[in-house]
Amino acid sequence: MSDFFGERLAQAVRKTGNCAVVGLDPHLDRFPASMRERFEGRSGNAYRKEAAKAVVDFNRMVIETVSDLVPAVKPQFAFYEALGSHGFAALEETCAAAREAGLLVLGDAKRGDIASTAAAYARSILDPSGPFHCDAVTVNPWMGADTLEPFLDACTETGGGMFVLVRTTNPGSRWLQHHGSPTAAIQVAEVLHQRGRAMTGPSGLSSLGAVVGAMTGDEATRLRTAMPNAWFLVPGVGAQGGSTRDALAGQRPDRMGCVVNSSRGVLFPSAAHSERYEDAPGEVIREMAKTHAERFQLDVLTAIQ
Amino acid sequence: MSDFFGERLAQAVRKTGNCAVVGLDPHLDRFPASMRERFEGRSGNAYRKEAAKAVVDFNRMVIETVSDLVPAVKPQFAFYEALGSHGFAALEETCAAAREAGLLVLGDAKRGDIASTAAAYARSILDPSGPFHCDAVTVNPWMGADTLEPFLDACTETGGGMFVLVRTTNPGSRWLQHHGSPTAAIQVAEVLHQRGRAMTGPSGLSSLGAVVGAMTGDEATRLRTAMPNAWFLVPGVGAQGGSTRDALAGQRPDRMGCVVNSSRGVLFPSAAHSERYEDAPGEVIREMAKTHAERFQLDVLTAIQ
Repeated sequence: MSDFFGERLAQAVRKTGNCAVVGLDPHLDRFPASMRERFEGRSGNAYRKEAAKAVVDFNRMVIETVSDLVPAVKPQFAFYEALGSHGFAALEETCAAAREAGLLVLGDAKRGDIASTAAAYARSILDPSGPFHCDAVTVNPWMGADTLEPFLDACTETGGGMFVLVRTTNPGSRWLQHHGSPTAAIQVAEVLHQRGRAMTGPSGLSSLGAVVGAMTGDEATRLRTAMPNAWFLVPGVGAQGGSTRDALAGQRPDRMGCVVNSSRGVLFPSAAHSERYEDAPGEVIREMAKTHAERFQLDVLTAIQ
Repeated sequence: MSDFFGERLAQAVRKTGNCAVVGLDPHLDRFPASMRERFEGRSGNAYRKEAAKAVVDFNRMVIETVSDLVPAVKPQFAFYEALGSHGFAALEETCAAAREAGLLVLGDAKRGDIASTAAAYARSILDPSGPFHCDAVTVNPWMGADTLEPFLDACTETGGGMFVLVRTTNPGSRWLQHHGSPTAAIQVAEVLHQRGRAMTGPSGLSSLGAVVGAMTGDEATRLRTAMPNAWFLVPGVGAQGGSTRDALAGQRPDRMGCVVNSSRGVLFPSAAHSERYEDAPGEVIREMAKTHAERFQLDVLTAIQ
């Protein structure tokens, strides 16, 4: 295994033949009924404890189902935090199970803070002896470039990676990200490019990536030009909308450089699937994960671009 | 008790006669030796479990020591996350103990995300049935004004409050916060002022506050002018430097409007105190908390301004 996260991600994408990521976002109200009945009707700590156990079982099933199909999974920390300490125990188990299954784990924590506080977050998520031990973490740059340093140090020490929030595509995202000229987003992109050079291996893809939403070609091209070596983690596909073409608008000429997340679109069935999901959720999830992986298969991406 | 967090904070400041906040940041390496020996030498999960127990004991001692002196405490989530699920269990106990002791709890989580994800964070921290149940939470605005909405909804429903990161004073803070004209920080401030109006009680102080670092007069005046009704949560005093004058530069003519945090400056002794701290940490912490409270006592603040 390479010491660089960016390189390990390139290897995993090549090995599985696609750049699809499965988001491990446990929306409890959409779990199969047999799992829901284990926690529904309870409240407070008892509810959180039983729900967290169901989350572990659900995630283990998903991990087993998708481990040969996709390069990585992305747990969204918020859904575990909602279950308090029990939820974080479920997150610990989930991260460990995914790594054991050979998947890369992208911890979607969106942390950002100063000095010793940022260092505490970085250790929790990137250090092999830390409780969550992900391969990479999402980071918020608003407090300043200096607040990225403790995460960069952790990446250097552990071989981990990070995805900095550069440009999202939620309705209000332009408010700060497109403020000023050059835009704040481009300013962040330029610093990431500079700092990522020292973490770039033979594939030319750095361990210092960016969260970049699915967007139309022009802006994606500007961001790719500013960050030629960065992995783009693309949310907003599937349940959140976003076309395949937009999701891949930032890919490099070698068809690498983007990993595209889908959470609800893989984990939870549409009306057409819902009956079979009750009895055989694993089968349905495997079908949906295959669809996601095929949509972002390396050897069809050229045609899309 | 008022339904508005901003009003409850005003009451607590008036009752204790000062606007000092004690940060509950458990720096384990600075705990008294008798507490450190309970976890030092262990590793992995065993270390985290024992360290988290020590954190609860330490925090209970601090809470008991300061509950009649200051209006609020501010646990920094990063230090609990570093201990994984055990750390979050310690945070649950800490929040509950502080509220039972009559202190307001400002959860320093700096969360920020979209839609259902932001709603999950808001519920975890602001909902009375949530695991952490703080009176207010710190929030990061980088992803857009829409990402503040789920937190605003939670404040309306629960009577909770939020402090949005407007302007910090770490070395790299100007990079994005002062980008553009008007600066991004002023742009955030203006939205907070607009949205805070519906959450403002008789004191004229809103439940929608701002994190504003200790800074020289001119900029603090500009921010106060943009946000006449906002509580400013001021970090960066004590171990982080920052003069009393700078910390209070944003206070209103009625001497209200700022709460000033000190973490290490209250919890952990300087060399002068270190011997007595080993034997009687509670006594030393009470002395240091008194000093912090006196420095930000309401009836001396006029002289400083």
